[in-house]
Amino acid sequence: MSESYQALRVNGDRLWDRLMAMARIGATAKGGVCRVTLTDEDKDGRDLFIHWCEEAGCSITVDQMGNIFARRAGAVDHLDPVLVGSHLDSQPTGGKFDGAYGVLAGLEVIETLNDYHIVTSAPLELVSWTNEEGARFAPAMIGSGVFAGVFDLDYALSIKDKSDLSIGAELERIGYAGAAKVGGRFFKAALELHIEQGPILENEGKIIGIVSGVQGTRWYDVVIAGKEAHAGPTPMSHRRDPVKGLLSILERIYRLAEQYAPHGRATIGDIKAEPGVINTVPGRLTVKVDLRHPDAAALEAMHQALRMIVKEACEAAGLSGQVHDIWHSPPVRFDPGCIESVRKAAETVGLPAMEIVSGAGHDAVYVARVAPTSMIFIPCEGGLSHNELENAKESDVIAGANVLLHAVLDQAGVTASPVH
Amino acid sequence: MSESYQALRVNGDRLWDRLMAMARIGATAKGGVCRVTLTDEDKDGRDLFIHWCEEAGCSITVDQMGNIFARRAGAVDHLDPVLVGSHLDSQPTGGKFDGAYGVLAGLEVIETLNDYHIVTSAPLELVSWTNEEGARFAPAMIGSGVFAGVFDLDYALSIKDKSDLSIGAELERIGYAGAAKVGGRFFKAALELHIEQGPILENEGKIIGIVSGVQGTRWYDVVIAGKEAHAGPTPMSHRRDPVKGLLSILERIYRLAEQYAPHGRATIGDIKAEPGVINTVPGRLTVKVDLRHPDAAALEAMHQALRMIVKEACEAAGLSGQVHDIWHSPPVRFDPGCIESVRKAAETVGLPAMEIVSGAGHDAVYVARVAPTSMIFIPCEGGLSHNELENAKESDVIAGANVLLHAVLDQAGVTASPVH
Repeated sequence: MSESYQALRVNGDRLWDRLMAMARIGATAKGGVCRVTLTDEDKDGRDLFIHWCEEAGCSITVDQMGNIFARRAGAVDHLDPVLVGSHLDSQPTGGKFDGAYGVLAGLEVIETLNDYHIVTSAPLELVSWTNEEGARFAPAMIGSGVFAGVFDLDYALSIKDKSDLSIGAELERIGYAGAAKVGGRFFKAALELHIEQGPILENEGKIIGIVSGVQGTRWYDVVIAGKEAHAGPTPMSHRRDPVKGLLSILERIYRLAEQYAPHGRATIGDIKAEPGVINTVPGRLTVKVDLRHPDAAALEAMHQALRMIVKEACEAAGLSGQVHDIWHSPPVRFDPGCIESVRKAAETVGLPAMEIVSGAGHDAVYVARVAPTSMIFIPCEGGLSHNELENAKESDVIAGANVLLHAVLDQAGVTASPVH
Repeated sequence: MSESYQALRVNGDRLWDRLMAMARIGATAKGGVCRVTLTDEDKDGRDLFIHWCEEAGCSITVDQMGNIFARRAGAVDHLDPVLVGSHLDSQPTGGKFDGAYGVLAGLEVIETLNDYHIVTSAPLELVSWTNEEGARFAPAMIGSGVFAGVFDLDYALSIKDKSDLSIGAELERIGYAGAAKVGGRFFKAALELHIEQGPILENEGKIIGIVSGVQGTRWYDVVIAGKEAHAGPTPMSHRRDPVKGLLSILERIYRLAEQYAPHGRATIGDIKAEPGVINTVPGRLTVKVDLRHPDAAALEAMHQALRMIVKEACEAAGLSGQVHDIWHSPPVRFDPGCIESVRKAAETVGLPAMEIVSGAGHDAVYVARVAPTSMIFIPCEGGLSHNELENAKESDVIAGANVLLHAVLDQAGVTASPVH
């Protein structure tokens, strides 16, 4: 890329206005967004997005999973394209930035290139993936997952929500059951811009997160079984109380997380007691545990430690313990070339940046299986996300888009010089 | 009472047969009973009970709460009667003995007195209280509670189940909305025979529990509030995780119970996490706590300690903690004269006995507010109750009824000698 492009910047007002316009679709009273996948609101959001892309001169393809691709031709159009984008669906009580930011910043990159009549060597594609959030249809990231060959198309289309409506039927209903084959295509690079959904950038005073990878995650149902007993007549010494087992397991899980600090994470998201009545010692507890670590060997060690913790704690308390594996997403290391493009772009724009590992899952996790990939993070207020109060500074939003612009230019290359 | 009655014993076969006949009404596949209050099964149980009482020559009164009183005249019939009985309703997955045993053993006492033509000086009344279990309509022990002036009649009749049916309407429907005033009557003594619903008698090798009182109970909702956060991106050190507060609170609650051993009890019956999803640090936990002690001062000290535990644990962890009082049932000390009658009766029958404090609530708790009261316990297998597998030995069942018989004779006195 020629030096002459270093001063190039996106149109921040246009980007911000479009983010706010998109946020009005499914806007909630508390300032958040409810644009759940494959609802009428999702359809409205998709329609508006496609309208803007067509105005920007892109050609639109919708695949059988409803993933939308907007293509801007390259100077050497047979080259593998550079992919940007994210998702437009939201949590039921979600925010304005999660997903939509990455999509609309991608569009702003295209608009900026249009404004300056810049043609990249490789074509650009801007994607909005179907059902990233997984709030209505589990699992999450199903559109990018099918694209990357993680899930079968037929399986994905057959997944139903609580009202027994399938992804396939709902895609048909909102008019987004496209004809294009899902996946089987190559990209030169894929770049996803996103709010951090955590507090690290804000706390470190950085504006750009150069995302080097995504934490590995393991999910468990830990079942602790004792003996149901009446709270009154049963002496403490006669009880086989699973809550006592829980106490010892919690103690040791938090110690495990400390042992693997600062990158190891342990979360107890839910505890269910059966029968769950005030005057009965529960017969059984089911505890949802989420372990994370960016290093595969460390995550494996945490996994083994959890099994040992539950075994030992339950044996010591005369309880029976079981650890059920629910989900395992291995750590992802992003492509060094893409990471380097992001680093250079942050330098070009002159922004304080740091390497960061993503704690949350993203479409980029699956995309990374089929394309050189990286992500760019910007801070969000208080690290809050999946929440109607999710917020990001306008200046940071614009800064992130500028980094995306320069990373795209770096990966796609530029053939023609700016005119006028 | 004359020495001549010391050898008097109930007809064990008749008692056992009637217990088994009653257990067929609402019998479950697992050998338990589902005879929930004011259902058709409850009506059938009541009808059968009244049929047996009338055959035994008793006069029947049903009050406005549906409590059934069967009266056997005394030689000096204007004396305050001696009350025996319990309840015929069961838990949805209850056992054969909880409640029904006390009622049918009371009937067996009357039958035995009939067999031997013994007339007590004071009249006898045999009661079956409405809705002891509280499984369908909360609170529990509502029939005896209204009788003792703890609850207003209008309030009690207006209580609704999950299907929006009221106690008043259901009493009408099954034909047990009686005309008699509820309460306002005097008894010389009240004796309730019951299975222990705990393991103490069995473990101590005793057949009779001389119940000196009932534990005081306090119920709480402990709310621990932190900050909802994403399990992935939020570093452990940035979290305000209420589960960490729970850990510290549990630790100290169990230490509190140890400190008040052997009589103090602490039970955590339920833990609810919000939002309760695996990949989110909960924003809020609600923990149901049940504290018990037979001594009022000790229970008060445990109560104050719990408030301090929650306050200190939450402050230390940067959380906010609240302790909501849900229910308080002060300890009950039964009447020394009634306790003494039970002790003497166990001696008369020649059974190994011990003093015991009831951990569970019983109608006798409320009756004790308006009459000199005590209870008699027999062992149940493994201490198991509120369970379809609830079981008691036939020999113990008969032993308990014999103790009831002699305690009744002691309290009611005998005027006429046996004839024939």
